[in-house]
Amino acid sequence: MLNWDTMFASRSSRMRASEIRELLKLLDRPDIISFAGGIPDPALFPDQEFKQAYADIFDGAAVNSALQYSVSEGYKPLREWLVGQMAALDIRCELDNVFIVSGSQQGLDYLGKLFLSPDDTALVTWPTYLGALQAFNAYEPAYDQLTPNGNRTPESYRAAASAAGGKVKFAYLSTDFSNPTGETVDLDGRKKVLALAEDLDIAVIEDAAYQSLRYDGDPIPPILALEIAEKGHINDTRTIYCGSFSKTLAPGLRVGFIVANAPVIRKLVLMKQAADLHSSTINQMAISDVAERGFDAQVAKIKAAYSRRRDCMLAALEKYMPEGTSWTKPEGGMFIWITLPEGMDGAKLLAKSLETAKVAFVPGKAFFADGSGANTFRVSFSCANEQMIEDGIGRLSALISAEIGS
Amino acid sequence: MLNWDTMFASRSSRMRASEIRELLKLLDRPDIISFAGGIPDPALFPDQEFKQAYADIFDGAAVNSALQYSVSEGYKPLREWLVGQMAALDIRCELDNVFIVSGSQQGLDYLGKLFLSPDDTALVTWPTYLGALQAFNAYEPAYDQLTPNGNRTPESYRAAASAAGGKVKFAYLSTDFSNPTGETVDLDGRKKVLALAEDLDIAVIEDAAYQSLRYDGDPIPPILALEIAEKGHINDTRTIYCGSFSKTLAPGLRVGFIVANAPVIRKLVLMKQAADLHSSTINQMAISDVAERGFDAQVAKIKAAYSRRRDCMLAALEKYMPEGTSWTKPEGGMFIWITLPEGMDGAKLLAKSLETAKVAFVPGKAFFADGSGANTFRVSFSCANEQMIEDGIGRLSALISAEIGS
Repeated sequence: MLNWDTMFASRSSRMRASEIRELLKLLDRPDIISFAGGIPDPALFPDQEFKQAYADIFDGAAVNSALQYSVSEGYKPLREWLVGQMAALDIRCELDNVFIVSGSQQGLDYLGKLFLSPDDTALVTWPTYLGALQAFNAYEPAYDQLTPNGNRTPESYRAAASAAGGKVKFAYLSTDFSNPTGETVDLDGRKKVLALAEDLDIAVIEDAAYQSLRYDGDPIPPILALEIAEKGHINDTRTIYCGSFSKTLAPGLRVGFIVANAPVIRKLVLMKQAADLHSSTINQMAISDVAERGFDAQVAKIKAAYSRRRDCMLAALEKYMPEGTSWTKPEGGMFIWITLPEGMDGAKLLAKSLETAKVAFVPGKAFFADGSGANTFRVSFSCANEQMIEDGIGRLSALISAEIGS
Repeated sequence: MLNWDTMFASRSSRMRASEIRELLKLLDRPDIISFAGGIPDPALFPDQEFKQAYADIFDGAAVNSALQYSVSEGYKPLREWLVGQMAALDIRCELDNVFIVSGSQQGLDYLGKLFLSPDDTALVTWPTYLGALQAFNAYEPAYDQLTPNGNRTPESYRAAASAAGGKVKFAYLSTDFSNPTGETVDLDGRKKVLALAEDLDIAVIEDAAYQSLRYDGDPIPPILALEIAEKGHINDTRTIYCGSFSKTLAPGLRVGFIVANAPVIRKLVLMKQAADLHSSTINQMAISDVAERGFDAQVAKIKAAYSRRRDCMLAALEKYMPEGTSWTKPEGGMFIWITLPEGMDGAKLLAKSLETAKVAFVPGKAFFADGSGANTFRVSFSCANEQMIEDGIGRLSALISAEIGS
């Protein structure tokens, strides 16, 4: 056998199997109630609209374009539609500020590739989106803790980054109903992150994957909108806004987007040209068509369904969870984050739960760049019906009660 | 304005605009005859077959799967079909040796990412596929010249790589009807590349993007097939075979593949999970369906069309090109490579040609990792009809004659 490890680049040692992915394999076991996923409910996909969109492409004049190579920046009508969507969020931008990627996960990979040399520092929250850590890990960064409402000094970040062997390059955060906690960064927290980024002269990566899925409470302006209001023009801003169609329309087409200042977009376009030429032409056309015809109606449909499931899960947690546990109360998204008493371990609980309670969830540790958070876990309500939620949270709570008592 | 260059990673300085991409913008000018592209002729796309495939997906039981997240390794029926295709090439492999990527360009990016630390050396031919150089450049390698039929010693490669600050990591080559030259590496050359790789203990990246498009001459076994015959099992081989559906079915869906030993495939799957989760589910299903129903008939159709155009272009070159020029006689693919007299410059010729002869092509220099090759250029016959070829080569030859004479 060849010894491949000696041939691989050093970055490859940081590419490891994802616990979440391994867990997804459990979703098929019929005796398990799974809150592990965090994927959209396929019953809510606009499949008839997509069927029509693909049929129209093949019956239309642009069928050859749909099957052909296309430009790296993305399909122009889709980018134009996004300019309009952004304006509604007070993100005033033009066509050359909008870039299509193959899902927002690719956006995170490209941003890691653009900014991070080995030993540079990325600021992330504790916990943060696991997929962001996985994307950034390929570029061998150090991590430091971003606390949107905290009071770490810029100097302390600079000193830590220098000790790690590089510079702070960006602050990454999910602003609304984040994966994994379901929490939202408030207006004051957003302003503080922006001020910190100004002081450190770094980029802000604003992950808005769940932004459309607000079920109650008032919308908070995106960091990019706050910065445009302050600076006057998007091309003078440092915030890079990452969006997705995976939670609203469908993930299987792999279409997401980045909205940012033109110099960063130009560099990302060059990067994409070298990395995969462009995102699927036909899928960009289908997403564009479905979005133009009925994005708002589709979002209203999924919000109605998911908000009922969130309400149901919060009620079940309130009803069944034992004293000593706590959980977030998200205003949108797909996730609730549960904290066990100090000393308990989410991974051990999962192992036991799969045997006895037959409920799946994701232990929290993997979401922490520093390996802390053992006593936390994530549950998702997006694919569960009310009976599953009632039964699953009931059984899981009983197990946790027994564990606390033992 | 922010000074982004100070914030970007060092690798970003090697991401530059592609001459070919800039040139593609000229394709729309109606007065220009373009041999620049090198893209498939959209008139030959199996659009009715794709129309049926997408319609069947939406009418079938798997519509929800088509729109949902899927596994990083790729759609199983497509991978199974590829196992059969590979067997016909004497590449005996199993499902876990086959990995789906978003076009073979992404395969090259991932392989660069997997193997290259900064200052490691990649062996490439002079000239080589420009897209490979662009993909690898992001990982900041040095390049050294691979000469399949040459006699550089392994020791000379090791010494040069060491002087560049790293190790030789792989030999990359396009084996059949390569982009840009149209040339094919003969059996002896393939064996020598493999022997060199054995000696250097490096991987071989075999780019087979054009492999299906042979118009005459006998097929030569892929390097991976030669190595499997020698070692007994694909999991003991060092050759990584990269294939594409872009030249045979359609590029706009972004579906390509890598066939290699299981340890490398496992690492690539992890990399993809972190980089973009998976290639478009619905497009993999559509490609799988169209391939299963009529891959061979589609390939026969495009081979018939392209081989006539190649014959026509070779005849026009023979008829019109002045003494002092030479060109390759490809047995397949899309490209012919033309060498001008020493001292002439392909880029200057192009500038003049666009003004006077109104013929576009790609100057050769960009395909050389060392910046040589100024007196070469690439023409493609894939999208040109016989009249365009006759007129275009006639006009271009007249210009070259005038330039040689002046």
